[in-house]
Amino acid sequence: MTADNSIFVGNKPFMNYVTAVVMQFTTKHAKEVILKGRGKFISRAVDVAEVACKRFLEGEIIVKGITIDSEGFQNNEGKDVRVSIIEIVLARKE
Amino acid sequence: MTADNSIFVGNKPFMNYVTAVVMQFTTKHAKEVILKGRGKFISRAVDVAEVACKRFLEGEIIVKGITIDSEGFQNNEGKDVRVSIIEIVLARKE
Repeated sequence: MTADNSIFVGNKPFMNYVTAVVMQFTTKHAKEVILKGRGKFISRAVDVAEVACKRFLEGEIIVKGITIDSEGFQNNEGKDVRVSIIEIVLARKE
Repeated sequence: MTADNSIFVGNKPFMNYVTAVVMQFTTKHAKEVILKGRGKFISRAVDVAEVACKRFLEGEIIVKGITIDSEGFQNNEGKDVRVSIIEIVLARKE
């Protein structure tokens, strides 16, 4: 599993991420793709996974696993804050 | 597993949900608690799970499983829309 198969979901247009997932599985023949989202983009990462699995690659890929975590960092004001993270592993159906 | 152990995360103050999780495991002696979130509240459900597991009940509970799904409904304008859902199962550590 190389970093190439990870897609970090942010504030680009929604379909960019769905297309990226579809491309990984089709033209790049990936076996797995990891969708990553932080903070408010967690909801969006889930939306991308759902649209990819249920609409574009229905019957071809599945949600293999989901993990959540959180990491601490200092914000602009030097205050310690924590942000949640999600990783959704999509895999080609056997 | 009864419906009593499910907590639906919405737009109430954040700590209400964390407190609800803690109460379920402490005063109500629940073995499992299911956090549910829809749409933009998915990120919040993950935040609640992380704060409960890493801060309030550290070492006592774990994230046992996470599932995502989506459901279709008609919005106010009668248009079919889909919304993503997350369910996070928290369980007492054995």
